[in-house]
This record gives sequence, C-alpha cells and structure tokens, in this order.
Amino acid sequence: MKMVKNAAGRRVPAEINGEKVIPFKGVGKHRPEGRKHGTTLVSAADYPPDGDKRVASLKEALQKAGLSDGMTVSTHHHLRDGDLVANQVFDIAAEMGVKDLVWFPSASFPCHREIIKHLENGVVHHIEGSMNGPLGRFTSEGNMKGTAVLRSHGGRFQAVQDGEVKIDIAVLAAPTADPFGNGHGLEGPSACGGLGYALADYRYAEKVIVVTDNLIPFPCIPMQIEGNYVDHVVEMDRIGIQERIVSGTTQITKSPDRLLIAELTAKFCDAAGLVKDGFSFQMGAGGTSLAIGIYFHEMLKARNIKARFAVGGSTQYSVKMLEDGCLEYMLDAQTFDLEAVRSMRENRAKHPDISIFHCYDYHAKGNYTTMMDVMILGATEVDVNFNGNVVTHSDGYMLHGIGGWQNCLFAKCTILPVPLFRNRIPIIVDEVTTLTGPGELIDVIVTERGIAVNPRRQDLIDKVKGAGLPLKTIEELKEEAERICGKPRRPEPLDKVVAAIKWVDGTVIDVVRQVRT
Amino acid sequence: MKMVKNAAGRRVPAEINGEKVIPFKGVGKHRPEGRKHGTTLVSAADYPPDGDKRVASLKEALQKAGLSDGMTVSTHHHLRDGDLVANQVFDIAAEMGVKDLVWFPSASFPCHREIIKHLENGVVHHIEGSMNGPLGRFTSEGNMKGTAVLRSHGGRFQAVQDGEVKIDIAVLAAPTADPFGNGHGLEGPSACGGLGYALADYRYAEKVIVVTDNLIPFPCIPMQIEGNYVDHVVEMDRIGIQERIVSGTTQITKSPDRLLIAELTAKFCDAAGLVKDGFSFQMGAGGTSLAIGIYFHEMLKARNIKARFAVGGSTQYSVKMLEDGCLEYMLDAQTFDLEAVRSMRENRAKHPDISIFHCYDYHAKGNYTTMMDVMILGATEVDVNFNGNVVTHSDGYMLHGIGGWQNCLFAKCTILPVPLFRNRIPIIVDEVTTLTGPGELIDVIVTERGIAVNPRRQDLIDKVKGAGLPLKTIEELKEEAERICGKPRRPEPLDKVVAAIKWVDGTVIDVVRQVRT
Repeated sequence: MKMVKNAAGRRVPAEINGEKVIPFKGVGKHRPEGRKHGTTLVSAADYPPDGDKRVASLKEALQKAGLSDGMTVSTHHHLRDGDLVANQVFDIAAEMGVKDLVWFPSASFPCHREIIKHLENGVVHHIEGSMNGPLGRFTSEGNMKGTAVLRSHGGRFQAVQDGEVKIDIAVLAAPTADPFGNGHGLEGPSACGGLGYALADYRYAEKVIVVTDNLIPFPCIPMQIEGNYVDHVVEMDRIGIQERIVSGTTQITKSPDRLLIAELTAKFCDAAGLVKDGFSFQMGAGGTSLAIGIYFHEMLKARNIKARFAVGGSTQYSVKMLEDGCLEYMLDAQTFDLEAVRSMRENRAKHPDISIFHCYDYHAKGNYTTMMDVMILGATEVDVNFNGNVVTHSDGYMLHGIGGWQNCLFAKCTILPVPLFRNRIPIIVDEVTTLTGPGELIDVIVTERGIAVNPRRQDLIDKVKGAGLPLKTIEELKEEAERICGKPRRPEPLDKVVAAIKWVDGTVIDVVRQVRT
Repeated sequence: MKMVKNAAGRRVPAEINGEKVIPFKGVGKHRPEGRKHGTTLVSAADYPPDGDKRVASLKEALQKAGLSDGMTVSTHHHLRDGDLVANQVFDIAAEMGVKDLVWFPSASFPCHREIIKHLENGVVHHIEGSMNGPLGRFTSEGNMKGTAVLRSHGGRFQAVQDGEVKIDIAVLAAPTADPFGNGHGLEGPSACGGLGYALADYRYAEKVIVVTDNLIPFPCIPMQIEGNYVDHVVEMDRIGIQERIVSGTTQITKSPDRLLIAELTAKFCDAAGLVKDGFSFQMGAGGTSLAIGIYFHEMLKARNIKARFAVGGSTQYSVKMLEDGCLEYMLDAQTFDLEAVRSMRENRAKHPDISIFHCYDYHAKGNYTTMMDVMILGATEVDVNFNGNVVTHSDGYMLHGIGGWQNCLFAKCTILPVPLFRNRIPIIVDEVTTLTGPGELIDVIVTERGIAVNPRRQDLIDKVKGAGLPLKTIEELKEEAERICGKPRRPEPLDKVVAAIKWVDGTVIDVVRQVRT
C-alpha cells in the first residue's frame, strides 16, 4: 500500500478500499471540487397515489429496493444501544445470500456486535462509521475484510452530500411514522426525540426504507423524516428497547475527581469572561459535562442573565435551563433522556430538532460550531502539542467513534476536561496514538491537578491570570501524570492499516493500525 | 420555429429560448432522466466564523454574488402584492449595467409592473413564472424579448430540482432573519406566515441572499430558510407593505350566485360521500372556496366528525376549523391572513409550514395531492372535454399564473366550482383557449345553473344520483351559457409564441400566442 505523509506528519495510504483519498492538508486548507450529489430522478407516477407505501416485511422492502452485492446500506443511531433494526438488515442480507456490503451507520453501539458474524461470513465487507466496543476490538485486531473509515458526524454528512459515499439503501427506524414515510421520534414505544442524523441518509440515498413500530395515519408531524424521499414503509412489532434508547434520567458524576474537574472548568470559563449574557455553549451528556452545565446554570441564575443557545445532545438538565428561562434555545440533534424527549415534544419553538447539516457540515455556507463561545469535549489522549485523540486508547485499540468531536473543535473556546489518568494510564502523552484533532484547535485542558491553556491562546491566559486557577503547562501536567503512573509504553502496532480517520473536509488525517494481540 | 404536435394535440415549439423542450406525452407518461441538480461544493472556511454574513446593501450583496449578464435571478412571492424587494433587484441590475437576466419568481403580482421597464430596457430578457395582470398584458401583446415560461408551483420546484432551471442568485425576503441567514415569516413588520415557496430557491441556487427588515440574533427559529445555504444577509428598512402582504381578514363571497355555487358544491361532496370522518381537502382563499369551507365546517361539527388534514393557503376560516377541533392538521404552504399567521406561530404541532416540495413536486417519491379526497379549484375556461384553462381569458390575454392548479388536479375528486359566465362571457366552451390541465383529471364542474360530472367518473355519478342535485351534461351547461350570452368569438392570435405552458413533469402542454391588439 502506497503511503504518503500528510500535513500533520502522519503517514496515510493514497488509496482506501480501492478509492483514491486526499491526505489532510491542514485546517481550512482543502477546497472541495465538483457539485453536491444528486440522486436519480424519479416520478410520482411510480408511487402509490393513495400514499400508502407499506410493504409486508423488511425483507420485502430490501428486495424491492434491490439489495445486492457491494451496496452501501446506511442506518442512523437514534435508537442507540436499544436498536433492533440494523442487525436485522444484515441477517436478511445473509438470508438473501448478498455479499460484500458496506455498512454506513451514523454510529454503532455494543448491541451491534451481531454484525461481527456478518463481517466474518462475508455479508459485510467493511464499516464506514464508528466502531464502538466489540466492533472496535474486532477491527483493531485486523479481522475486517476491508478498511474501516471513521468520520465525524459532520464529515459523514459532508461525505454523503459530496458524493464521496453513495448510499444505495437507507434503512431508517422511525418511532412514529405514517404510510407515506413521514417520521419522527417524539412519540411511540421507541421514542427517542429528534432524528437529526437521518437527514443525509433520506435525502441522498437512492432508496429509503422507513421502519416503525408506531404507525399513524398521514400526516406524521413534525416530519423529521420527509416521506417525499421515502420508497417503502415497514411496520414491525418493536424497533427498539426503550430503556436502552434513552436514559430514564441522565446522571451527573459522583466522582470527587470529576466534580473537581467540572468545578475548575466552570471557574475557568467564568474567569475568562465566557459566561456572559447571550453566550452559547455545547457539551456532551457525560457525567462531568452535566456537572459543568449545573455550574453554568447556577451562574446564569445568580446573575439573572441568559445563554442565547446551546447545541447538542439535550438532557433533563438543559431542559431545566430552558424551562426556567436561563437558556433561550436548545438546538437539538440528539435527545438523551425522557425529559428531553418530552421537552422537544412540548417546547417546539424553543427546543427544535436540528440536523447534522445545520450544526456540523463543513462543506456548507458556514455551520454552528464556529459561532459557539464555549465547547466542552472529552478525549482519550491529548499530547503536549494539544493534539487530541478520541478513537483509540493508549494500547492502540480503537474503541470509540469520532462523533461530533472534530466538528466541535472549531468553537471559539474549546475545552477538554479530562482526568490526568484513567486506570493508571496517563491521558496526557508525548504524541497521541491516533491524531483525531489538531492541537491548533484545542484551547484548554482541564484536569483535577491543573489547567493547561494552549500557548496559542495568550488572550485566554491573560484573561484568567490572577483568578487563582491552578494554571500549569501541558508538559507539567504530563510529568505529574508520569510521576504517579510511570511513563506509558507506546503501542507497537503492526503495519496493516485497519481504519482511516477522516478530517471534517473529507481528507485523511490519520490511520489506525492493527494491534499486536 | 419548428413546431410539433404533443399528446394533447396542441402544437408546441421544439425549442424555447434556445433550449430543447419535451412535448407533453400524456398524464403520467413521461419519466425524467438523470440526477437531481447539485450546487457547486463550498467550504465553511470561506464563510465568516462568527456567522455574521451581513453586507451593507442589496447592491453589495448582488455584486458579491457576482450578478452578471444572462443570469437567472429568483424571488419568492410570500410578500404578494406588498413585495418591495424584487423590483429593487432589477433596479440595481440596471444601475450595474447588467443585461438579459431571467427573472424566476414563484409568482408575480401587480406591484411587479415595475419590471416592465426592465423588460423594455434589456435588463430582463424574459420571465419564467406567473405573469399576473400588467406583466401578462405586456407579454400577451408580444413585447417580451424572450419567451415566457409558465410552470405550476410544483413544476417550478421540479424544474429547479431537475436542473432544468439553474438559479444563479436567489434573493429571498425574510420577515425575520438572523445574521447567519436563517429566516422565517412568522414575525416582524412584514410577517407573512410560512416561506414554503423558497425551498427550491435556497437549496438549489448557487448564491443565496436573504433580505430582512427584522434582524434578530442567531438562532432565528423556525428555520423556514436555512442559513447554512445562505451567502449574504441584507438589512433594509422595509421589505414589504403589510396590508398588501396578508389581508386583515379574508372575505367570504356575498354574491348570491357564488353562494349558490358553494352550496351546490358542498351538497355534491356530501351526496358523493366525500365529507366523512378522516377526510382531507384543499381549497383556495377565494370567496367561493371560503364559503364551501364554511359548509364543510358546519357538516363536520353537526356530525361530530373530523377532517384529518387540509393542505394549502390557510385563512381565518381554516384556523377556526383547526382550533375548534374539526380539522386535525393544517399543512400550510402559504398563509393568507393575519389570523392564519397567528395560528402558524402558535399551533406549531398542528399548523406546520410545509414546502412546495412536500405537497406538489411530481418528481418526488409521491406528493400530497394524490392523497386528497376533495380538491376545490377555479378556472377561466373549461371545455366540453373537461379540459381546463387558468392562464388566459377567452380573448387570448394571459393574465394569471398556474399556481398550484395543475398539481392539485391529481386529487381523488377534483371539483371546479365556476360561474357559468363572467361579464357575459361563457366559461364553458368548445375548446379551451390554453390547455392548462387535461380533462381526464377534472371530475366535476359546479355552476349556479347545474353540475356536470365527467363521464369518466361513473362512480361519482352513481353516488349522487337521486340526491336532488341539478345534474346536467357539460354540453347542456355550455348550451345554456350560449343561450344567455351568445356563442363566444374565439380569439385569433398571431403566430408568435409568447409563452410556454409546462406540465407538472416539465413537458410542454401548450403555448400562448401573441394577441391581436
């Protein structure tokens, strides 16, 4: 395999799965050529005039959609670890004797470990999308026939829109749908909130199948999936397992170290003047992020000011902020708990579902992340040049997807609150195992033992000076971790490239190599 | 000009404005080839990171968008006769010395008579879109440099989506917008309700300019225009004249003849069993249609049943039906009065804004009109073969656009309540002056002197037999009109084709020829 060195100094292949790729050129350097992808034109004359697109089974739908060898089949991940649809698709493909499919999920979960047998039996050639947990382990050990391709959520939209990935068939679970194919996630036994990850799939796939366990008469409003793009509708008993789709209640961390990290992060933001009237923020649904949100909420309330908007995964905590008037808009691409689902249903004007196109697509006329004041993200590793890794652990195993992480790095102040070590393995290292995001976009690292600000952000350093925060250099933090845990051993992977890591513009920023087992 | 006879027997040119066209092949016979249009790929790196796309003036925006000779410039018609934006675009183009533009509005109004001077001075080459009133007269008399092209609302979306019309610059008035370019019509001094006609424009135009007189901070929710597609935002003092944008209150007809037509239409629908629990309907905002709506409303209330959905222009009357529970969903692509604007703002779950793509696009995987039980439409002429005309009068003058009329013909029961004559000119004729819709799609003609059911619809004839309705043949109605008004003189137009009439699938169904003045 011919390898080239990209602008980040990483050696990446010139071709992946037989297709030429573009090596990373630097942040903001690549310009796409050509036009947005267009699906084959169709005529309404070929669709049922009564709008009833139901077929008897998912198998019949896949047959009608022409499932055959080598096709790319996409699914969304809004049903998370409770998804009962994706595995069925490949079980049916196996039954039909179809081979060498590409699975293109917006994310994968442990429940998708069932796909491993289809990677082994030749039904699935490779996966383009996240490979969390068991699938990641399988891939890391070199067992996938093709090369995995990991993209950020925004990069997935970009790849589809640009025609880099052509989806043959999208199979989209919809917690509520009508026979025309309109769908949403607000109601039904498998309610999950918004369906903002499915937009690329239904708009750009050649064939679109909607699968539901809560069929209602036309019209299904809001149309988070638009029936005018849908070919077939399938009813089944259950598309998901409710308790694995959304939490009954998302949990704030109880760990004293994590709470300290959250407190330091909030104090840093405050000292830097970021928590001001009309500010905007995004943070995940992890325990530490939620705790930071609580601090923000308290500050806003105490000062009688408002955040203008938040983007992201919504939880009971962001809903509380919204409903007591401390947050004006919750722009939501995924809904993490039942309270957030309720809010999206009830607060349509203030808690709208948005798509990945809106918040993250880098090949659009702007997106939301560059506008955001505070961005809170995680990482598996950060290095002394502030480069971040979210896909592999320090042992070389690829166990996580990129999610929106790369897209979010473009915010005005990107902060990574991370523990100094996990299971006695330091998080801050000399060089990240897998480069997922360039250090020039990462501004602040907050640990329980100190805060390192990227020297490129002298403006932030000046603002927080004298605020009594435990400021350290990133090297100091690294040394402190190594004093406690010892110098970590770098993994020594084999040569075989098992996964490519795409940057937000479709270029290849790094690869993952097969681990030694 | 080479002419060919199309499947409706009308002679149409093989080329229009130098481009080959496809003659009408019959209803449901044409299949499009190729792929949906894709705009040139862009990078967010070339847009302001703070999301602020404002420029100082519309002129600066047009210059930045590269306005130059021969370009196609589009506008929407949601500001109706109160639009202050479209005329400015061409005044600026004249100032810039730009020539031979194509104006591509979703509809035009009398206020756009100002464009006539730009058709005369060479700034505008021709118009593709409706030419109501003064522009229609100007065009009918052979004064336009190029050939006008009239499309239905759905046909306009289809043409843009299919790449048949490539919009270089869309200039989109937004009654409320943010600096990123998100916009809606629900609030502000020029509030107009939904902006459902603008979807084709912002999604498929190369450059998109949003013009507003009510700028608010990001995010402007709902995003009836999505800022991720927008290049420039312009603030101006006033984009519209409120009293000409929406009526303070839409008016039911007071004419005894029209009220009789409305009553007969409602009775016909009832006798035919169409007004039943869960039925769907669409009707315009004209005085007769509104009266029919009142009858429907009374029937539903009296029987304690509900209509499942209505599509269309919403008014205070449909809102009343919605709010007192006789109508479950009002799917709204244009909002006709202030009460309807209020409802769209307040009843988001039940009165959503939809786009033309949803209700009318014939090159989609189905659309809404084929699902509808009752469709109420108007016509300037109907002939003994039930063919309909909505664009020209019997004197040959083209004074109206097609609107959604062609798209709506696909409903399960299409009814044209029309007076037998207007200004002593019969509406029912031997052959329509301009074929806008084929008779096979028109089911019932209701006049104040009798009802004619299309003989193709024996099922309807059987259902209403014995209900005491004044059923007549279409020939009987024609003869009755001629007994009263005399046989109308057919216009004798000149040879020159001044306008092409497209069918919903992009084929040419008829042409309009220059009138003798």
